[in-house]
Amino acid sequence: MMDNLHSISRDNTYMILAYDQGFEHGPTDFDDSNVDPYYVFDIARHGKFTAIACQPGIAEKYWHGDYKDTPLLVKLNGKTRLQSGDPVSRQHCSVRRAQELGASAVGYTIYLGSEHQQTMFQEFGSIVEQAHEMGLAAVCWMYPRGSNVDDEMATENIAYGARIAHELGADIVKVKDNGDEPGMHWAVRNAAQTDLVVAGGSKTDPETFLRNVERASNFGASGIAVGRNVWQSEKPLKITAGVRRILFDDMQAEEILDVMT
Amino acid sequence: MMDNLHSISRDNTYMILAYDQGFEHGPTDFDDSNVDPYYVFDIARHGKFTAIACQPGIAEKYWHGDYKDTPLLVKLNGKTRLQSGDPVSRQHCSVRRAQELGASAVGYTIYLGSEHQQTMFQEFGSIVEQAHEMGLAAVCWMYPRGSNVDDEMATENIAYGARIAHELGADIVKVKDNGDEPGMHWAVRNAAQTDLVVAGGSKTDPETFLRNVERASNFGASGIAVGRNVWQSEKPLKITAGVRRILFDDMQAEEILDVMT
Amino acid sequence: MMDNLHSISRDNTYMILAYDQGFEHGPTDFDDSNVDPYYVFDIARHGKFTAIACQPGIAEKYWHGDYKDTPLLVKLNGKTRLQSGDPVSRQHCSVRRAQELGASAVGYTIYLGSEHQQTMFQEFGSIVEQAHEMGLAAVCWMYPRGSNVDDEMATENIAYGARIAHELGADIVKVKDNGDEPGMHWAVRNAAQTDLVVAGGSKTDPETFLRNVERASNFGASGIAVGRNVWQSEKPLKITAGVRRILFDDMQAEEILDVMT
Amino acid sequence: MMDNLHSISRDNTYMILAYDQGFEHGPTDFDDSNVDPYYVFDIARHGKFTAIACQPGIAEKYWHGDYKDTPLLVKLNGKTRLQSGDPVSRQHCSVRRAQELGASAVGYTIYLGSEHQQTMFQEFGSIVEQAHEMGLAAVCWMYPRGSNVDDEMATENIAYGARIAHELGADIVKVKDNGDEPGMHWAVRNAAQTDLVVAGGSKTDPETFLRNVERASNFGASGIAVGRNVWQSEKPLKITAGVRRILFDDMQAEEILDVMT
Amino acid sequence: MMDNLHSISRDNTYMILAYDQGFEHGPTDFDDSNVDPYYVFDIARHGKFTAIACQPGIAEKYWHGDYKDTPLLVKLNGKTRLQSGDPVSRQHCSVRRAQELGASAVGYTIYLGSEHQQTMFQEFGSIVEQAHEMGLAAVCWMYPRGSNVDDEMATENIAYGARIAHELGADIVKVKDNGDEPGMHWAVRNAAQTDLVVAGGSKTDPETFLRNVERASNFGASGIAVGRNVWQSEKPLKITAGVRRILFDDMQAEEILDVMT
Repeated sequence: MMDNLHSISRDNTYMILAYDQGFEHGPTDFDDSNVDPYYVFDIARHGKFTAIACQPGIAEKYWHGDYKDTPLLVKLNGKTRLQSGDPVSRQHCSVRRAQELGASAVGYTIYLGSEHQQTMFQEFGSIVEQAHEMGLAAVCWMYPRGSNVDDEMATENIAYGARIAHELGADIVKVKDNGDEPGMHWAVRNAAQTDLVVAGGSKTDPETFLRNVERASNFGASGIAVGRNVWQSEKPLKITAGVRRILFDDMQAEEILDVMT
Repeated sequence: MMDNLHSISRDNTYMILAYDQGFEHGPTDFDDSNVDPYYVFDIARHGKFTAIACQPGIAEKYWHGDYKDTPLLVKLNGKTRLQSGDPVSRQHCSVRRAQELGASAVGYTIYLGSEHQQTMFQEFGSIVEQAHEMGLAAVCWMYPRGSNVDDEMATENIAYGARIAHELGADIVKVKDNGDEPGMHWAVRNAAQTDLVVAGGSKTDPETFLRNVERASNFGASGIAVGRNVWQSEKPLKITAGVRRILFDDMQAEEILDVMT
Repeated sequence: MMDNLHSISRDNTYMILAYDQGFEHGPTDFDDSNVDPYYVFDIARHGKFTAIACQPGIAEKYWHGDYKDTPLLVKLNGKTRLQSGDPVSRQHCSVRRAQELGASAVGYTIYLGSEHQQTMFQEFGSIVEQAHEMGLAAVCWMYPRGSNVDDEMATENIAYGARIAHELGADIVKVKDNGDEPGMHWAVRNAAQTDLVVAGGSKTDPETFLRNVERASNFGASGIAVGRNVWQSEKPLKITAGVRRILFDDMQAEEILDVMT
Repeated sequence: MMDNLHSISRDNTYMILAYDQGFEHGPTDFDDSNVDPYYVFDIARHGKFTAIACQPGIAEKYWHGDYKDTPLLVKLNGKTRLQSGDPVSRQHCSVRRAQELGASAVGYTIYLGSEHQQTMFQEFGSIVEQAHEMGLAAVCWMYPRGSNVDDEMATENIAYGARIAHELGADIVKVKDNGDEPGMHWAVRNAAQTDLVVAGGSKTDPETFLRNVERASNFGASGIAVGRNVWQSEKPLKITAGVRRILFDDMQAEEILDVMT
Repeated sequence: MMDNLHSISRDNTYMILAYDQGFEHGPTDFDDSNVDPYYVFDIARHGKFTAIACQPGIAEKYWHGDYKDTPLLVKLNGKTRLQSGDPVSRQHCSVRRAQELGASAVGYTIYLGSEHQQTMFQEFGSIVEQAHEMGLAAVCWMYPRGSNVDDEMATENIAYGARIAHELGADIVKVKDNGDEPGMHWAVRNAAQTDLVVAGGSKTDPETFLRNVERASNFGASGIAVGRNVWQSEKPLKITAGVRRILFDDMQAEEILDVMT
């Protein structure tokens, strides 16, 4: 395992705090607290996340001092809510810039099945090459979406995405969990030596969220990348503690929920 | 704060004279005086603007001698009135050329929600990287516009634009003010550590204009970028003095207007 | 003959194990065994294949230790099942990356007759130049397909593809066999000094498969590139042994099948 | 004023012989004499033109020996008569090649209002940067034309073009004269420190042509770029002498015509 | 005259054997003999052609040993029969690769009047610059064809093409002969200092072919580039001898035909 995978994991497990929603969804995801990157970076630090994922502009102006305790994963592309047609997200930040910002890893989203997928394959392929030359881990956000995709949450599409991320050279692939445990295990198998992490998704109740984390752990995921279920929560550090216990202490969601309530 | 933000501000406040309207709108904005760059550069100097924003061709032929007292902000792209379809403005001037012209900062316009937005994200991302390597400030003109934008002046779109400029790495984002003070404050919050300045807009009466400056100051803007309301004014230095008093001396528009009339 | 053609052949004959189907077709081609690259790399090694063809991500994480006994052919582009319109496959891996991964050869697919063929000619031409500078062999997967192709399996189209691969500079061209022995011999003639190998195609019964290998040998092919007929087989090493005897020991399919059953 | 503007002018006035019509219009503009570049280069030399403007291929094979007495302006792009849709002319000659051919200046055409204008802004912007680094003058042929232009000869469009050429960094802008003297003076004002020269246009009678030159001189043009009215003339050196007297000796067309007839 | 024009001519006359038809037309042009590059390279050598024109892949694998007696002209682009829409042929071989293969000259096809002509102008312009830096001759195959061309064989279009090739910097332009001797002479005049050679065209009877060569010689062509009329001939060396006598010994087709029959 390369050093930078170690640096953004503990016990080979990833607990990544995602904070690129301002780009992908817009201010609609924020309230008066979490609109402020310091608020979220504090959660990352005190919650002992293994990495914080954000766009380069946030990294450049906020990732300093003690916030550097949380390893940095810089996202290199982004799509907005104000976009139509087949989804595409182009690289707007170089691997070199990410490295100079202090990143341990770089992230890039591919929309599998979009009519623009070949462009994204090309950009990600080049990113992997550069990242590995610089000793950075390459993380692929892989979402089946676009005119060639009938069902974004079909197991065969999620597994296909995991495989392509692996064959392109991703060290970690982030996918959505469709709730089908054997299906998601099949996706993990297809990811092969590429570690698969599960997206936290939109805000839900703590119970559902923690059970999702437990299921991911069960079907073989190497961790999660969570955002809104943490920093939109009223008690972000409490929910984070729950996630940690599932991922690192092998506790069950049931036990944790008993304690939390 | 980087040195070049200091160099184009006073007391962390920006008072930028914008003079790229010849490119964006054409000669229709000019009269026999202000068609001459020397006329406008004189206003910049005597009016104590913290920066003059213009295209590279003007900078190359006019920004010399005493005019260099006003720090230079070179615009790197431009759209014309003779353009149709979703708005796009491509980089026609390199960051290196701007630096050699003596610029302290570079500017670039993004049309959020245009079908060409990904291209502009890419160009601006690269501009930020190069500018910061050279110690220049990166300024983003951010306008929601195009087929994916229902309302260019909706708070959520202005705030979304401010956020994206921040996440891409802009040091300053220039937006339009929709008159909704809490809404514009929300945009300032979303811009986070990126300073937000307000566009002066088309020519209006001095009273309205100065009240707009005051409101911007109130909702947390870090200054203004004004053009036509100054150099189309019959008394450009008088109106400039008014702006200075609001931005730097905390005077109210009301007081100034009493003196002016 | 260049050194790297020697390194991926024996007795001027190629027996290549193809394992890029996870990219081209998806997990649907896999079962619980062959989804694992180690399973297939073991077949390559024990089956004495002259090369293993795979995408860079697999090469990077699996081609190590004893697996390096099998020379590496890195595929530089890939198309997915979730693609529509005229076929196109863009280069996502540089020749330099392939070389650093340890490749003896690089592979690239061209869809002759696609409206995107000129783009693929350009990419492959540049790949050949770089590969030959680095001493790597250049392999062209050449498939007539797209809106300008009436019949993908017509002899004239297969032969045309073989010729173009040769004129672009390929060292090896991989084509499909349409079963017309004189026609395929004509394709071999058109490939001129470029060696022609035949694709194994989708899974069929051992008898048909081995007879196909024999026919290819008869019409002048320099070998085969086989995937599913080996690693989807219940007895992959047995079928591989059969292939070896045909290609290297001049045995006939008939004789081998007698022994196998 | 940069040295190379001096080298292609006399008394700050440009008298440029244009000979790129073989590219733009085709052989239809030529007769048995002027099809031969030597014929036209002889006129340039004996007529004391301040520069000869032509494509790189002509410069490379004809601009030698005594012909070098006439400074060279190499055109870097060109459109043909066999083109449809919105006009576009792409750079086919590098600034470096022009410099090595011995050019004092480089020329580039922009079609303002074409749907391809952004591409041409980008190419010209880069040309200006390179030209100025090498000490060459940058000349912009600026024609409003395309789907966003209602009237190619409207003063507002000509003046807009002159302004944009200036803001992009052109040292000289070449425009068409619409015959409206105050309007053309307004264009000169908009060109600011960029010198404006007038196109000679298609062949007309000597009287009309010389009166046009006089008018251009009157409204403030810095000279002319003429082709067909000279080298299609039966007495090219006589008409050239007339132009010289207007531009450099302040004679009036009337006086010259009296002498000529 | 540059050295490399000398090296691919005798007495300032070009007799070029063209062998890129396998790319442009496909195997349909070949029989069991001429499908083999050695067969055609032998004709080139024994027929004393002043150059052999072929794609880089053929040059790389066949132009060695005694075959190097015939100077090499490497074709840098190619179109196939399996292409539709306006014709386009993109550069798939770099000038540097051609030089390393040993070429004295490089060739590139432009389709004048195609909607893609600007792209081809750009590529050829860059090729000329690089070729001349390396001391190679630049040859332009110039064919009017595409949606903006009414008549591919009209004199005005052929002459226009010859002119544009010259203005772009071609040393030699290859055109089709429309049989109109004064018209073709006009094309030669428009080519100016660029040498014009005539395409041999599709296979015809020896009489017609040799009369065509004679006519080309008469209207001022600097030679021919012939393929099928030689290597599809039953007596390729005999027909070649006839061509030589016309081009170099000023014999007439009539005399040669008398001897041949």
